[in-house]
Amino acid sequence: MDMDNADKNAIFPKGDKAPAEYFTGPTWLTMLVTADEVFNTSIGNVTFEPGSRNNWHTHPGGQILIATNGIGYYQEKGKTIQVLHQGDVVKILPNVKHWHGASPQSEFTHIAVNTNTQKGVVDWLERVTDEEYFQLVK
Amino acid sequence: MDMDNADKNAIFPKGDKAPAEYFTGPTWLTMLVTADEVFNTSIGNVTFEPGSRNNWHTHPGGQILIATNGIGYYQEKGKTIQVLHQGDVVKILPNVKHWHGASPQSEFTHIAVNTNTQKGVVDWLERVTDEEYFQLVK
Repeated sequence: MDMDNADKNAIFPKGDKAPAEYFTGPTWLTMLVTADEVFNTSIGNVTFEPGSRNNWHTHPGGQILIATNGIGYYQEKGKTIQVLHQGDVVKILPNVKHWHGASPQSEFTHIAVNTNTQKGVVDWLERVTDEEYFQLVK
Repeated sequence: MDMDNADKNAIFPKGDKAPAEYFTGPTWLTMLVTADEVFNTSIGNVTFEPGSRNNWHTHPGGQILIATNGIGYYQEKGKTIQVLHQGDVVKILPNVKHWHGASPQSEFTHIAVNTNTQKGVVDWLERVTDEEYFQLVK
């Protein structure tokens, strides 16, 4: 556990920095469960610093997000951004193009449960532009 | 949300009382995700009051526990009790007989992720006796 990176109110350590190729802005990942052929599930704890978000992407087997701290954003392609708060749960259907991240002014932490991982975990797509990200701020 | 039953530090409301048939001592359940044929996953937030535990049981499709608050117990048949703290993750293989709950002196909350629910969610068995539960206290 990186103590410089610890939050005494957090359930999990922030973990390692998520890959810059797929994340815009500093984002931290702790893997809790890696996928295997018994559980067909992987689980990660993700902390986005204010303004950070992942690229557009899809999950072949679906994903469930559980918001645990801060204020976050979630958007499916063609829909408006949803604001997420602690305790919110989002079910993301297989192959629905979407992104998630922090809101501009608040850090955001969620647990991400990847379901049916035997079908694949994630297919990464293009970055979320500032124009897309800041649409609620206009 | 039952405000008499709320904890301002909790991620989720405590929810409804879990069925006395399968739980010894007061236990509270908030369902976060119900099983369906797309995600094959159900997720619940469970809060055990000190001394409370569920019956021995098995999961045909497996289960993953994520400890979020307090101090808990987990035991698989024939093994010693494991003490669980915030941030601990337990992977319970399909058809392994086990139980979980709070420790005698501390409340305990976990998120329970039922995997491969197309195979079934839970098969309840006999109660955990006081002799079994208090084996670490002797």
